[in-house]
Amino acid sequence: MAKVNRNYRKLPGSYLFSTIGKKVREYSEAHPEAEIIRLGIGDVTQPLAPKIITALHAAADEMGRAESFRGYAPDLGYSFLRETIANKDYQERGCSISADEIFVSDGAKCDCGNIQEIFGIENKVAVCDPVYPVYVDSNVMAGRTGDYDPDTGRFRDVIYLPCTEDNGFTPGLPWEVPDLIYLCFPNNPTGAVMTRAKLQQWVDYANDHGSVILYDAAYEAYISEEGIPHSIYECEGAENCAIEFRSFSKTAGFTGLRLGFTVVPKKLAVEGEALHPMWARRHGTKYNGAPYIVQRAGEAVYSEEGQSQIRQQIAYYMENARIISEGLKKAGYQVSGGVNAPYIWLRTPDGLTSWEFFDQLLARAHVVGTPGSGFGPGGEHYFRLTAFGTRESTLEAMERIQNL
Amino acid sequence: MAKVNRNYRKLPGSYLFSTIGKKVREYSEAHPEAEIIRLGIGDVTQPLAPKIITALHAAADEMGRAESFRGYAPDLGYSFLRETIANKDYQERGCSISADEIFVSDGAKCDCGNIQEIFGIENKVAVCDPVYPVYVDSNVMAGRTGDYDPDTGRFRDVIYLPCTEDNGFTPGLPWEVPDLIYLCFPNNPTGAVMTRAKLQQWVDYANDHGSVILYDAAYEAYISEEGIPHSIYECEGAENCAIEFRSFSKTAGFTGLRLGFTVVPKKLAVEGEALHPMWARRHGTKYNGAPYIVQRAGEAVYSEEGQSQIRQQIAYYMENARIISEGLKKAGYQVSGGVNAPYIWLRTPDGLTSWEFFDQLLARAHVVGTPGSGFGPGGEHYFRLTAFGTRESTLEAMERIQNL
Repeated sequence: MAKVNRNYRKLPGSYLFSTIGKKVREYSEAHPEAEIIRLGIGDVTQPLAPKIITALHAAADEMGRAESFRGYAPDLGYSFLRETIANKDYQERGCSISADEIFVSDGAKCDCGNIQEIFGIENKVAVCDPVYPVYVDSNVMAGRTGDYDPDTGRFRDVIYLPCTEDNGFTPGLPWEVPDLIYLCFPNNPTGAVMTRAKLQQWVDYANDHGSVILYDAAYEAYISEEGIPHSIYECEGAENCAIEFRSFSKTAGFTGLRLGFTVVPKKLAVEGEALHPMWARRHGTKYNGAPYIVQRAGEAVYSEEGQSQIRQQIAYYMENARIISEGLKKAGYQVSGGVNAPYIWLRTPDGLTSWEFFDQLLARAHVVGTPGSGFGPGGEHYFRLTAFGTRESTLEAMERIQNL
Repeated sequence: MAKVNRNYRKLPGSYLFSTIGKKVREYSEAHPEAEIIRLGIGDVTQPLAPKIITALHAAADEMGRAESFRGYAPDLGYSFLRETIANKDYQERGCSISADEIFVSDGAKCDCGNIQEIFGIENKVAVCDPVYPVYVDSNVMAGRTGDYDPDTGRFRDVIYLPCTEDNGFTPGLPWEVPDLIYLCFPNNPTGAVMTRAKLQQWVDYANDHGSVILYDAAYEAYISEEGIPHSIYECEGAENCAIEFRSFSKTAGFTGLRLGFTVVPKKLAVEGEALHPMWARRHGTKYNGAPYIVQRAGEAVYSEEGQSQIRQQIAYYMENARIISEGLKKAGYQVSGGVNAPYIWLRTPDGLTSWEFFDQLLARAHVVGTPGSGFGPGGEHYFRLTAFGTRESTLEAMERIQNL
């Protein structure tokens, strides 16, 4: 008789964004006149840049002609894209990452969720608190977290790294040594960044203790200040201890097109075993390559025209971030993030819980955000707003919040 | 200190098609004058149908305009596609599958590889022998197979279902009861099909024993004879015991576009727990939806014009299959498949092993096929050719083989 994977029973409730969706739907049905502004889920709103659309059309035409039709893509991605990534994202920044260390995929969420498969069940995982739910949930499903403790809101076998106002929402080194360390900077949900010096401490720690850092750099394109690393490979020795995830979703509006990549340096070994061939085997066995047309669209992002167009989009969103940050501060909120990241992190007023504030903001301002507690107990009494709305809706939302 | 997933060490050698690629590359380098014809890997060669190209262009244009831009797709797929699939592939065939039981994905390979995650590690897996390598390899990685036994070419804890000439390459019921049963019909690699009556026996067996059938129907569009089920849900009670995988790859040439879907009926429960919400949770946590433009391309496949165009492509490939089948028979080979499937399965001559025949065919006819033994020990002394070449290369390959 078949048996289910009982680890799934440990997952508390539904996925955060499903719960938000349900609450908003219910409110809308009860108040059909309310004009709801969504600054909750981190989805972009600007259309794909013209250069990207041109690349999609050209590639689609190729697929319609026998002489240029492409079937199965190479498992790890087309060379034209891997070479471009290695060159533009790494070598030009002084990181010695080569094309054959790049694994093209359909997005960083999948890669962040799947990467744990190449590690044993017995590894001890560390995550920031608050944190993007996929890191923890994918480890729960695999059986690496132990049970959920409803009193603390934490899984018993996970090491949580508190990210608080006191440490600028960047975690200090842990007391207990983790085997796998998930870090995401610029951070979702807090919008915090780590300086190169602080990230170097983590790299040194990982190399000293034989830990592996799983570094999610999905928001690197939003970094506006100097001294903030865009890649973990800007730190010395990172190629011996770190895997990096990148995404085209927020960089170039690919949330509905799906493209990302993972860097597994050839030097990176665990128990003397190189991780590169393991991830290649995983990729080759359970994945069949990103669509050719989407890889061509990804290549277009790196062209001169593409870069200029996506820089404009990012500037547009970052102006939203500035509007939200300043608007909230004017309204008396305590705010961080929004400078090197498209996320604004605010402290709920009057000691409200995150969900109480969510309900209040929805009912009184018809603005949807994301409760900080949905990212872990450390996010309680915080709230996330995103810069991905349109200018009009962002301005309107701020006006409503200031009028509360 | 981090630990690797040691189950990966049990995987023997490299992925089958990587080995073939390497051998062909080496031969080509040594014999640059040889005109090699590839009838090995099951990749299509016909360009995407015009109706599909039109849909891609229209959807790309939508993505370039603010008012029609689409960000994150619904996790489980757009309604327009799920409704169409439920209607055309199921309800019109008398199967009571509804749109919300369809999970759209980027291909059947991923789904077949990932589905095992929602089941416990302790489940006993049964596979046909020979078999598509992904079913076994994904279970090896998860730790469900025990060690590889080089003497038998089998994993110790897997139940192998022999598919031989005697049983028409369709497996009989096993002696030991499996928990999870992978079946693929029309079959890759043998091209065999199961009658509705025989598949009904398997469904009844699974329902009697609490087993789950994981049914890969990626090649159903190639069925040309009556009485052969296109879906396992044509069998009574299958919605209580079976998950079905479908692909657009071979149906409509989507190998480089990536689209498939999985059906998890809401009635299907294991240990009293419904599998539908588990797969939804897995999908929602580790996947982010198929690209909008590709889902629109998938929708186009079901239009009247799309259907007529892909029927022509399938007819083209099946004429190749007929040419290969008859050509091989004329040359004295013992052949099966190729009638309801794009695969032709032949017995190697003179007692040659599969790899010996591979080497000989490559060296003497410059034709690449797939060694049967690459699909499991039951495939030894067999060889697979595919109908996915062009007409010219297929005819040329047959002429060369007949002249050997």
